[in-house]
Amino acid sequence: MHMTLRFSRFSWLMISSAMWLTPTLLLAQQLPSRTLPERNVPVPPTISEELAQKAVALPVRVFPLPRTAEEWKSSQKSIDADRAQTARATAQAVGATLKQRQIAGVRCFEIIPQTISPEGAQRLLVHVHGGAYVLGAGEAGTLEGILVATTCGTRVISVDYRMPPDHPFPAAVDDAVAVWKALVAQHEPSRMALFGTSTGGGLAMATVLRLKELQIPRPAALFLGTPWTDLSKTGDSYSTHAELDNVLGRYEGFLELSARLYAGATDLKHPLISPVYGDLAGFPPTILVTGTRDLFLSNTVRAHRKLRGAGVTAELHVCEAQSHADYLRSYPAPESREIFEEIDRFFDRHLQK
Amino acid sequence: MHMTLRFSRFSWLMISSAMWLTPTLLLAQQLPSRTLPERNVPVPPTISEELAQKAVALPVRVFPLPRTAEEWKSSQKSIDADRAQTARATAQAVGATLKQRQIAGVRCFEIIPQTISPEGAQRLLVHVHGGAYVLGAGEAGTLEGILVATTCGTRVISVDYRMPPDHPFPAAVDDAVAVWKALVAQHEPSRMALFGTSTGGGLAMATVLRLKELQIPRPAALFLGTPWTDLSKTGDSYSTHAELDNVLGRYEGFLELSARLYAGATDLKHPLISPVYGDLAGFPPTILVTGTRDLFLSNTVRAHRKLRGAGVTAELHVCEAQSHADYLRSYPAPESREIFEEIDRFFDRHLQK
Repeated sequence: MHMTLRFSRFSWLMISSAMWLTPTLLLAQQLPSRTLPERNVPVPPTISEELAQKAVALPVRVFPLPRTAEEWKSSQKSIDADRAQTARATAQAVGATLKQRQIAGVRCFEIIPQTISPEGAQRLLVHVHGGAYVLGAGEAGTLEGILVATTCGTRVISVDYRMPPDHPFPAAVDDAVAVWKALVAQHEPSRMALFGTSTGGGLAMATVLRLKELQIPRPAALFLGTPWTDLSKTGDSYSTHAELDNVLGRYEGFLELSARLYAGATDLKHPLISPVYGDLAGFPPTILVTGTRDLFLSNTVRAHRKLRGAGVTAELHVCEAQSHADYLRSYPAPESREIFEEIDRFFDRHLQK
Repeated sequence: MHMTLRFSRFSWLMISSAMWLTPTLLLAQQLPSRTLPERNVPVPPTISEELAQKAVALPVRVFPLPRTAEEWKSSQKSIDADRAQTARATAQAVGATLKQRQIAGVRCFEIIPQTISPEGAQRLLVHVHGGAYVLGAGEAGTLEGILVATTCGTRVISVDYRMPPDHPFPAAVDDAVAVWKALVAQHEPSRMALFGTSTGGGLAMATVLRLKELQIPRPAALFLGTPWTDLSKTGDSYSTHAELDNVLGRYEGFLELSARLYAGATDLKHPLISPVYGDLAGFPPTILVTGTRDLFLSNTVRAHRKLRGAGVTAELHVCEAQSHADYLRSYPAPESREIFEEIDRFFDRHLQK
């Protein structure tokens, strides 16, 4: 069986004759690689039926490939309309209320859960949504905020930051920092946390990097859900987990287009774009979540290891058989509730009573 | 690109006509599955050169497939001779001393590191080696004990437990429990930890399950390195990471043969064989380590989640691009040192001074 695996030493020989390749391809050629044969991937019996039905058993999601600004806007509008509907339905199901607010000139949503706990009343959680820096505008970006607000019994401010094609980097970071700065002027930072999933996780890290630079008080805790910490397709699981992840599929296509649209002329490895390259010393205690099938498994574990290396309290949770951010789309599957309860307990341990 | 992925609804239709399949195959057919196309897996640039050379860039290891007791013994002898040589060379390099001892009638090694720290002098760590319950006899099983003893500056007792073909389950558990019981009669359990990798991680869990049953004092901390918590090929990464892991390859073959040889007539899901099915309440604080390419990624994260669910302090570390137990074979690569330092700090936090 192992005979079908070839250790491609051939690739070493190609280097000298490969000067016509783009730098990215050349880099890939310089490293030895193996070929993995086709394989069958069943839904494992180690997950709940609900998680299987809502997430793991689904086919790979297909994203559009917009080329012009108009095509981007049309795709964004159509995908976000669906997401907004899911968010509204969830808010109704859990009894949460959404209020639109302007904070520091930035559109935000204040999310008020049905029940606010005694500790929760003293606290404020700030959310930056996911969506590859292009999706999640308006209510479409509030689902995670609704779930965290509800689980923690705490108000959430969800930042509806500006996005490409009209507003590329650094608009999203600027908006998140502006909102945080305004909020921290009126709240005790030791009772505030910042969180987000995917792009929201990367953006939360970029926000903390900027707060450090600007010497603005930082959150007392972070939740980074499968954070997009490296937009440059660097990291093992971009290769190993391609197409295994049925949410993101692979880097090439929508993710790559989104990364380039967001970054514009700026290097994809700029620390405010790919925060795994930033100086993470002084980061607040951080909880990170990913899944065994997640295309961003490496994005997450690299950030975890780098945080630990910088002396930061950082704890990692990896969910069996889950692809990118499955804890969001599978809510309230038992595995999803379990993760939100981990986040609640983590915030509770690290935010002042 | 996504078009190459097929959501095999066809498998649902096969169920009724699949009565001729073995139960295992039948189970696989009952769950929807996807086909992942062949892929190229390069060595990522996110790891040290040393880790790449010693582990990640290597071809998939090939194990023998013994059929008779004699063939087993011959394979064991030959593989363990190599491993013993590595262990001796490592002991010499780090200045550790190995002494053979009998404890409760069980062959053990006492591993004395070059430097014993002041806290280390009060502590005792107990090691159960890996090797699929068939490998690691004698000095061949001491490598990990040498590395932990050296990093923690603490003596280690490594249990050279009996193994198949002559001594199947429960000999290994009985030996580990007997040694622990003898040691804990003479040492303060709050200053003792238990650890092991792969089979050693599973065996450490089985040992704690038995200590609970027998009401013998438990360790104050556990280190479970990519523990073999489910010997029955249940868990997502047995499928998703097959042949991606260049240490273990896949379940079918050596692992499956070893599991069956060890278990004999006992169900592979017996909690003392596959401890993820045990009652983990009351387990000591536990640190778990795995890698993004590890065939036992699910074995590890399932145990982590189950420990957390049982209210146990349990922290997880996942190493970029590493296959099964690469922190052992890549020592002293920076990523390997980092993990042993995490283990040292974890033990230091949880063992009494």
